[in-house]
Amino acid sequence: MYETLAVVGATGAVGRIVLEQLQKRDLPFRKLKLLASQRSAGSEVRYAGETIKVGLLEPGAFNNVDLVIASTPDEVSADFAPYAVKEGAVVVDESGYWRMDPKVPLIIPEVNPEAVDKHDGILASPNCSTTQMVVALAPLHRAARIRRVVVSTYQATSGAGLSGNVELNDSVRSALVGKTHPPKTFQHPIGFNLIPQIGSHKYEGYTSEEMKMVYETRKIFGDDEIQVCPTCVRVPVATGHSESILVETEKPLSVEEAIELFNGFDGITVVDDLANMQYPMPRDCDGKDDVFVGRIRKDISSPNGIAFWCVSDNLRKGAATNAVQIAELMMKQSSK
Amino acid sequence: MYETLAVVGATGAVGRIVLEQLQKRDLPFRKLKLLASQRSAGSEVRYAGETIKVGLLEPGAFNNVDLVIASTPDEVSADFAPYAVKEGAVVVDESGYWRMDPKVPLIIPEVNPEAVDKHDGILASPNCSTTQMVVALAPLHRAARIRRVVVSTYQATSGAGLSGNVELNDSVRSALVGKTHPPKTFQHPIGFNLIPQIGSHKYEGYTSEEMKMVYETRKIFGDDEIQVCPTCVRVPVATGHSESILVETEKPLSVEEAIELFNGFDGITVVDDLANMQYPMPRDCDGKDDVFVGRIRKDISSPNGIAFWCVSDNLRKGAATNAVQIAELMMKQSSK
Repeated sequence: MYETLAVVGATGAVGRIVLEQLQKRDLPFRKLKLLASQRSAGSEVRYAGETIKVGLLEPGAFNNVDLVIASTPDEVSADFAPYAVKEGAVVVDESGYWRMDPKVPLIIPEVNPEAVDKHDGILASPNCSTTQMVVALAPLHRAARIRRVVVSTYQATSGAGLSGNVELNDSVRSALVGKTHPPKTFQHPIGFNLIPQIGSHKYEGYTSEEMKMVYETRKIFGDDEIQVCPTCVRVPVATGHSESILVETEKPLSVEEAIELFNGFDGITVVDDLANMQYPMPRDCDGKDDVFVGRIRKDISSPNGIAFWCVSDNLRKGAATNAVQIAELMMKQSSK
Repeated sequence: MYETLAVVGATGAVGRIVLEQLQKRDLPFRKLKLLASQRSAGSEVRYAGETIKVGLLEPGAFNNVDLVIASTPDEVSADFAPYAVKEGAVVVDESGYWRMDPKVPLIIPEVNPEAVDKHDGILASPNCSTTQMVVALAPLHRAARIRRVVVSTYQATSGAGLSGNVELNDSVRSALVGKTHPPKTFQHPIGFNLIPQIGSHKYEGYTSEEMKMVYETRKIFGDDEIQVCPTCVRVPVATGHSESILVETEKPLSVEEAIELFNGFDGITVVDDLANMQYPMPRDCDGKDDVFVGRIRKDISSPNGIAFWCVSDNLRKGAATNAVQIAELMMKQSSK
């Protein structure tokens, strides 16, 4: 049983949505504890009609805590997760730090729920750009075995947290009056611009964000033979990551089969009517929990390819919603 | 000899840059005539220190005109080009109307200059998204024969003319104060949003803009076996189309070979230093005539692939500059 739940990073862009999702999904815990680093500890947060004071994230904070949902930078997670586990808590972590650790399961509840059964105290939620892609790929992989994915992303500024959106607004406002707002969160001005770099150089000309899409996809599907060629690009959109995806499968799929597979999968909504200008767009997916797919068509450059367009709220399914769903799944398992 | 040059659509987004390029490149004509449709005829335009009155585009307007550079919508070109040719002019057309006509050569001077030699009075300049891609692909194709291209575009609002940029600004300003500016030029609000549709439905789920990238690429290279899978997306950027390109060649190319080929090709500038955050971005390419490439790396999902990022000012190499270069090439040929 998980009686006491702690939310770490409760005041951040993702943490706020974690709290909203906990209420919306009505998770069966008795006590809620909020924790944050020095900067935000001491502040007060409203939850279910009550005011909760945010405690400091420090050793000892997890005594009597059963389950943790954490949205922090990598280095914060590297530091606190070990002592949280030692103090008896199980940690559902949204940072990138633990994801590729062989002892840590990497979970999307609709895709690999069985992975929650085996862990050493830490479970990880995938990177935002990976999560929405893997949800969309899952039904195609089950039906036709995916061999290769070529993906180009159009990633929102909120992927960099609240400061990303502040910088987008400042950058756009400055550009509108012919000025340049000096970038801090991003490498270059993002207003009316594109930045083809997310993260730092990682492998053979690919960035860390790009290699997450390669490694995490393989780990979640448990298939190291899936080839992924990613290009990750930051765009001047506040919320909602978009992805142009081309997938090659072992068994060819028709467009009709692909649409049927998408429609039959939990967590995917198909919006696909080009003649009537209907397809997923960031402004329509903001605040929604599903992964949206559209522009579904045969790849006209290969016999076994399907091309499509995929949008999802990166703070929700890409982060908060998926982590809360992992916690929900664990609570269900433990109450069996 | 081409003594009198006419610029049709001289007051539009592209027409203005055509005039700028004519001066910059110092083309050897004696007389300049400016023409536009009813709405803009009668206005005055400054050129080389003189004021030129814009004449009306109508039958008879091309008597004594030798060469025409035209930037108009398709339907305007369909109407005027035949009578311009009948009146004795040769038309370099930037619209989409004539490009796929078997009697009309489709030209990028760096790629297929020989194509200007054979025409029936009309020569076409390719679509903006095609032009920059084909320039970037040309050296790779010559060295290693391209078999397949997967491309996702990030296209600027100026591709829809001056009204596109006005709408981008209005849409962004409205969104900043929590309002929605009703779209007219685009299908949906473009401020802080992405629209995965450019043009209308054309073929099997692909848009007209996407199929231009397929058909025009094959025509320019004279190779109908090149397979192209395009996804065209409008982004909230004013000027500069960007493209995430994956190319598969018959002969494998190393990254070093690809960079050397790009560097050796007229009209391409390589900006490629991820460690120092250097790569092409729309804000750096605005107002420049070259095609910029960066993020050049091996495709980690196929043995013969190269992935790269390509940016160019869509009003310049993607339109005005290429058309003026075609005119320049014809003037050179005729003076031989």
